[in-house]
Amino acid sequence: MFEAAELGRKVTREEFDAIAPTLRTELLELQRRLREADFPVIIIFGGVDGAGKNETANLLNEWLDPRWTVTRAYAGPSEDEAERPPFWRYWRDLPPKGKIGMFLSSWYHGPLMERVHDHISVADMDERLIRINRFEKSLADDGALIVKFWMHLSEKAQKKRLKKLEDDPLTAWQVTDLDWKHWKMYDRFVGAAERLIMQTSKGHALWHIVEGADARYRTSVVLNLLKEAINSHLQRREAMTKVAAELKKPNNQKPALPDVLAKQPSILSSLDMTQALDGDEYNRQLQEQRGRLSALHRKAKDKGISTVLVFEGWDAAGKGGTIRRLTNALNARDYQVIPIAAPTEEERAQHYLWRFWRHLSRAGRVTIFDRSWYGRVLVERVEGFCSDEAWQRAYGEINDFEEQIVEAGHVLCKFWLHITPEEQLARFEQRSEIEYKQWKLTDEDWRNREKWGAYETAVNAMVEQTSTHIAPWTLVEANTKTFARVKVLRTVCDALEAGIKKRK
Amino acid sequence: MFEAAELGRKVTREEFDAIAPTLRTELLELQRRLREADFPVIIIFGGVDGAGKNETANLLNEWLDPRWTVTRAYAGPSEDEAERPPFWRYWRDLPPKGKIGMFLSSWYHGPLMERVHDHISVADMDERLIRINRFEKSLADDGALIVKFWMHLSEKAQKKRLKKLEDDPLTAWQVTDLDWKHWKMYDRFVGAAERLIMQTSKGHALWHIVEGADARYRTSVVLNLLKEAINSHLQRREAMTKVAAELKKPNNQKPALPDVLAKQPSILSSLDMTQALDGDEYNRQLQEQRGRLSALHRKAKDKGISTVLVFEGWDAAGKGGTIRRLTNALNARDYQVIPIAAPTEEERAQHYLWRFWRHLSRAGRVTIFDRSWYGRVLVERVEGFCSDEAWQRAYGEINDFEEQIVEAGHVLCKFWLHITPEEQLARFEQRSEIEYKQWKLTDEDWRNREKWGAYETAVNAMVEQTSTHIAPWTLVEANTKTFARVKVLRTVCDALEAGIKKRK
Repeated sequence: MFEAAELGRKVTREEFDAIAPTLRTELLELQRRLREADFPVIIIFGGVDGAGKNETANLLNEWLDPRWTVTRAYAGPSEDEAERPPFWRYWRDLPPKGKIGMFLSSWYHGPLMERVHDHISVADMDERLIRINRFEKSLADDGALIVKFWMHLSEKAQKKRLKKLEDDPLTAWQVTDLDWKHWKMYDRFVGAAERLIMQTSKGHALWHIVEGADARYRTSVVLNLLKEAINSHLQRREAMTKVAAELKKPNNQKPALPDVLAKQPSILSSLDMTQALDGDEYNRQLQEQRGRLSALHRKAKDKGISTVLVFEGWDAAGKGGTIRRLTNALNARDYQVIPIAAPTEEERAQHYLWRFWRHLSRAGRVTIFDRSWYGRVLVERVEGFCSDEAWQRAYGEINDFEEQIVEAGHVLCKFWLHITPEEQLARFEQRSEIEYKQWKLTDEDWRNREKWGAYETAVNAMVEQTSTHIAPWTLVEANTKTFARVKVLRTVCDALEAGIKKRK
Repeated sequence: MFEAAELGRKVTREEFDAIAPTLRTELLELQRRLREADFPVIIIFGGVDGAGKNETANLLNEWLDPRWTVTRAYAGPSEDEAERPPFWRYWRDLPPKGKIGMFLSSWYHGPLMERVHDHISVADMDERLIRINRFEKSLADDGALIVKFWMHLSEKAQKKRLKKLEDDPLTAWQVTDLDWKHWKMYDRFVGAAERLIMQTSKGHALWHIVEGADARYRTSVVLNLLKEAINSHLQRREAMTKVAAELKKPNNQKPALPDVLAKQPSILSSLDMTQALDGDEYNRQLQEQRGRLSALHRKAKDKGISTVLVFEGWDAAGKGGTIRRLTNALNARDYQVIPIAAPTEEERAQHYLWRFWRHLSRAGRVTIFDRSWYGRVLVERVEGFCSDEAWQRAYGEINDFEEQIVEAGHVLCKFWLHITPEEQLARFEQRSEIEYKQWKLTDEDWRNREKWGAYETAVNAMVEQTSTHIAPWTLVEANTKTFARVKVLRTVCDALEAGIKKRK
């Protein structure tokens, strides 16, 4: 794999100076075109120490328009980062559409170095690489251009390079004992790197292996590959936009579900909606569960266990009221309620999961999503805000996201608050009558109501595809608010109890 | 996940009879349109025993035009199948473009049942599912429509169903002790199934979970989903064809590589082409290696170790002559030379790897590919016979293919026979002078020669991306035929020796 990057390729200063101005102009022009584009560029530098990862990133930073470029390098996770799932920091740093993001010591660094130092087995590394593949695939599916450069040096060239850096007083600080320690592990490093590249070089995220010994050569190669990649991605996305338009033409409308299937029971219609709780019993149970929640949360906080609660449900199903009953039992500094409405401009310039990743909280906190990432497979599906392919692949992306939350030791509960159409109508009418509640009722609520059937189909599919043992849905019969509130509280308490037990 | 498929959904006979004729006509019409399409349809039935997998496949077979439909079900591998990598039989059975293939007890059956019976761990099952994901992804990338139905029954419904089948003398034979044994393992089965679905439900190959208790309901759902899937895939492919055309427009041509990069040494130009072997030494070494090969092959055959040899190289580099020196040492019944020219009509209707999978031989045999799957990243790349995306993702697909060959215990060697452009010219001229060799020289050879630089770039990238520890490339300095032949023979012998040792 690396033989082809140990050939002693060189570009002279004269040669470089001859092509540099054109390359630079072309890159700036591409960057200008990028600003209008509907995708980000993600550049990853990996490879052997001393092969020029940093220098190349520096030069790119110098050449490109800095307003549209971000560079990120990672060390061991900070306290802040360690309290979230490992990919949190990478999600946070993703460049928005139109920008170029450069990543040094990226998501590949950990699995690779842990394998080199034998802290993890080959199978463990593979598992980690699968997660990386899913991450990059999800970004690429969303349109991102991912360009990965693996900078290579032969063992001899690496030694020579480290020596040279050491001998120059201006660069000697760059060479540490660790670098020499790594150099002695060269064979292990290259062996692990080969596996890493094999497992993660995909059509949509190819590793380009670059001979790193000569600075001008490697720079020319990287700049040229980058130019080509951006150029052809721009062309491709433009063509894809035409496809999307094509597929939206009226004659491409989907046929309606046959009546006999449309009228079938759904997971929602099978709920026993008569369940209720009378006033005294409600108060007793509410107090009991709130006391329990308060105590359990303190325990969880002590242990650094975070809680993520997801609330979905029909308009007027009582999400807000239920959330308030819950938060009342908590200390204001310990929870965040995240109301999810239409995404902001900043959020629209990112992958749809980005705005949820960013809200994952520090250890011991409770994050409550009032509507959530499930919007992708509910409202966005029903309203046609995203393509069929986009919401279909979202199930897998969501399962992967939630798996990472649970693997990080967080407690995750997902609630669908269900009311019948009749109950909804009654509540709408009540809202329109009570002055201080009128603001809660919008034209959109009435419009959504007309699409009850389509939403029900979507909810059914959502439960089918995303209710799993590690992250089950709790369907809440919410025609009676009291019953719903107690059921939610009890479910959260049970989950916290189980989560605390598991941590022991 | 399965709660939504235990709702007791039913379609009455009257309801079914009312929609059946239309559905049937629509499906036949779609099948007619499919015949002209550039993709196959792959339907997979999985799920709980008794949930109607077979019945649904039967009905589809009845309704569809049998000339354009194939159905495959798998039991434990036959002797023939066990001697090849596990996916060999699935590749062999893939439907060509324009046809529908239905798969029962498909590639999912093994990993699932082995997990249910605790023969493999969860991690092992995951590994197997990754291979499945790669397989399906590769087919989908090639255009295939993959529709997966998971037929579900609750534990109670399964019992009822098995009882009912048993009670009817006409269907009693369908229920075996094994079915009841499986029923007792219901929870294990459903647990493993959930993981399987979570890991393999992808945007391009979504699992549809179907409630299987009522025959007319499940049939209606499957037929309707199938209809929708084919319909929207036809639309999508049509739009994609337009994109491909768009991307091929003259203004979308790729810029040429800057001279300063084009003239860099490649992995080929770094070879020492002066290596030679004089006549006596050649004869001695040739005899020695042939004797060695003959003995080693007999040992390998005894142990059931197959050998796969890949020959690539420049026109007139001496592939044919080298192969003959090799096969002379073998028994005619033990080897096959597969000359790879332009694909046949049958082969063109399949994934490009299909025609190589089919040639993998029985245990102990030697299969020699005179040109190979590397055509995808060489001639097809250089001549623009496939899209950039197609050859870029081919590296990963090829690595995966070769990994399966090696994992099956086969010995794999890959040779690039290299000659210099000057030597090629001399050989071309010699060929055109010797009458009985003139047929070997075509206009295409001269045309290829003009693209030497582009081919060299492609060879370099090929070695970079596909020369790995498990399947390394051997670059052969072939300006002197004698030297090349002995080097190839020795490499094959060394590999066989290592392979035999590993098997012990």
